[in-house]
Amino acid sequence: METIGIIHSPFKSIEDMPIQPKGAVGIEGTLHINEDYIEGLKDLDGFSHIYIIYLFHKANKTSLTVVPFMDTSERGVFATRSPLRPNHIGLSIVELIKIEESIITIRGVDVLDQTPLLDIKPYIANFDSVTQSSSGWMRANVDEISKKRSDDRFK
Amino acid sequence: METIGIIHSPFKSIEDMPIQPKGAVGIEGTLHINEDYIEGLKDLDGFSHIYIIYLFHKANKTSLTVVPFMDTSERGVFATRSPLRPNHIGLSIVELIKIEESIITIRGVDVLDQTPLLDIKPYIANFDSVTQSSSGWMRANVDEISKKRSDDRFK
Repeated sequence: METIGIIHSPFKSIEDMPIQPKGAVGIEGTLHINEDYIEGLKDLDGFSHIYIIYLFHKANKTSLTVVPFMDTSERGVFATRSPLRPNHIGLSIVELIKIEESIITIRGVDVLDQTPLLDIKPYIANFDSVTQSSSGWMRANVDEISKKRSDDRFK
Repeated sequence: METIGIIHSPFKSIEDMPIQPKGAVGIEGTLHINEDYIEGLKDLDGFSHIYIIYLFHKANKTSLTVVPFMDTSERGVFATRSPLRPNHIGLSIVELIKIEESIITIRGVDVLDQTPLLDIKPYIANFDSVTQSSSGWMRANVDEISKKRSDDRFK
């Protein structure tokens, strides 16, 4: 695995970070892509939304159960978006605003500043949208999570 | 990065594989999770859909531009789901059918048999659904892609 770029966001500390994109509505950030990979961005500007896959670089350990925000029970880490998963891989869907050379401006960024970027994939509604889904233990808490800020989820 | 399990699917060869989940509607597969990580699956069974993040283990090179299926133009690799991206990371949304100990049965699997699994994340509609999006160069071709099978996309 190699870093293809760096994510820049207004969130300089873990404490200030929203814990999901819906808590980062309207927040802009940029992806600074390594010069070597600019050619790979061709045609990406036609997509309104992209997946970004990145490393939770501040997560220094793995925990198979975690107590998520807005919850009081231990949940299996794969049933959460916690950074403390075995591979510290993060995934967010963000809005693509513009691409200028190696700089991609995005909106709805819920990622810590200086996060290493691993991949970008286009969001394609016909593949990626799920019309009916259920969200297990998360159900009751989703609205509150939007307002919540991160604190110790990396620790 | 370490493998947390292995994806089993009916697709034994690259040639027979659908190129997206929508081409794999109804196709069942299983995730065989390493015993060490079973604890992390707690509460996952409440979710109807999950993201699986995996390694395109048959992709042996990187190409910054690719000619996607159903297209005749070279596109930047980050504007496609091609395996030939700098980090050979794959992402699919699948339906979760059941979890029995270390075996997770899924539906809608568009992945090659024996693919190494890196992560599982719950699909949470309130975070992940995008109500309005546009899909750039992909627009005209999405329906046809559903019927298409893989051939040389790893090569």
